[in-house]
Amino acid sequence: MTQDMTLLWGSGSPPCWRVLIALEEKNLQGYNSVLLSFEKGEHKSQQVLDINPRGQLPTFKHGDRIVNESYGICSYLESQFKNQGTKLIPECGAEQARMYQRMYEGQTLAQKMMDVLTYNMKVPEGERHDSAIKRNSEALSAEIKTWEGYLQKGPGPYLAGKDFTLADVTVYPNFALLFRLGLCEKRYPKLAEYCNFLKDRPSIKATWPPTWRENPQGQTVLKDL
Amino acid sequence: MTQDMTLLWGSGSPPCWRVLIALEEKNLQGYNSVLLSFEKGEHKSQQVLDINPRGQLPTFKHGDRIVNESYGICSYLESQFKNQGTKLIPECGAEQARMYQRMYEGQTLAQKMMDVLTYNMKVPEGERHDSAIKRNSEALSAEIKTWEGYLQKGPGPYLAGKDFTLADVTVYPNFALLFRLGLCEKRYPKLAEYCNFLKDRPSIKATWPPTWRENPQGQTVLKDL
Repeated sequence: MTQDMTLLWGSGSPPCWRVLIALEEKNLQGYNSVLLSFEKGEHKSQQVLDINPRGQLPTFKHGDRIVNESYGICSYLESQFKNQGTKLIPECGAEQARMYQRMYEGQTLAQKMMDVLTYNMKVPEGERHDSAIKRNSEALSAEIKTWEGYLQKGPGPYLAGKDFTLADVTVYPNFALLFRLGLCEKRYPKLAEYCNFLKDRPSIKATWPPTWRENPQGQTVLKDL
Repeated sequence: MTQDMTLLWGSGSPPCWRVLIALEEKNLQGYNSVLLSFEKGEHKSQQVLDINPRGQLPTFKHGDRIVNESYGICSYLESQFKNQGTKLIPECGAEQARMYQRMYEGQTLAQKMMDVLTYNMKVPEGERHDSAIKRNSEALSAEIKTWEGYLQKGPGPYLAGKDFTLADVTVYPNFALLFRLGLCEKRYPKLAEYCNFLKDRPSIKATWPPTWRENPQGQTVLKDL
């Protein structure tokens, strides 16, 4: 069933990681997995551009169907393989509402992370301002505090409640990246607890970014956030 | 069934409009509709903040369930009322794949629109650069050309194919806003055709932004794009 699936992906990228997790949770192992290097610019290679003219990873093919947007791939997989593996959309309406809310709020978190982490890449040198860097950093810090608050209020242990859902599939990789980049576990104890709890989940273990596994030492760029 | 639904929204905002369309398509008329004014800052009022601490519209309550993210509300409504009104997720797998791809690509379009339309609001005066304005404008123009190309290649007449789906619900309001702001119909003929085709759909007619109805004359800010 998975021989006609191909995923092109890069290590440590939250959009790629969420697709890897979804594939594991839906028991879709055995697909054609192509690991590319962002450092070498392979996401702009012809192999990618042929499937995804935006030159971005992930890039996903199922037969001749192409879905490249990570939220789209996860939703597509859940929809196509509803009765296989983990049910990623809960039956309970209240939990479903929380799932959709957190899942899409995760895009605001991701955007604020990008504003901080890719500032020098996205903003040409002559247009950079310390005031913008400070503002982006404060916005990200406030955003992370919002999520710490969500986890404090519960119901937990997952983002939408008692079940592991699309909210965890899509948002967890962002949090994992924040801690990898030095976010202080003591300052965000509930987030740290959530991340450590999920670390042992088979789908997370199986898809842990290979570059992180090779080099377990994280960075410190977000240590003061 | 809809007496326990409340939507707080603002006129002309694509995120609000897509929720209004979804509610119509799912035959959920009769909900408690609260139209607020962005100009008067009512999206930051206590009434909104009580449901949505981010102080953004739309804001949606179904009983005691809260979903504020527009993509989340549309997905939630489709999920909860699957067998009522228009089926917004097609059965056909190929069409479903296209739907998810276009639906989430629509977020890139929306982001590029925001970069252009809210530049002065988001970037403090001392940090503004003509080069950034030019770059944002070029990026939006390229993005719109990408979508013109999608519609040229088909299959149409809707974004994912023969059925009106969540892709149209979520992305159409962005296109309608672009033309309202002066986008040239002759330069983007397929997009114009798509927009004019959808204009007569009951859910679109019923939810046409009241401020646009009052003042049918659009703006010209995007006429050169």
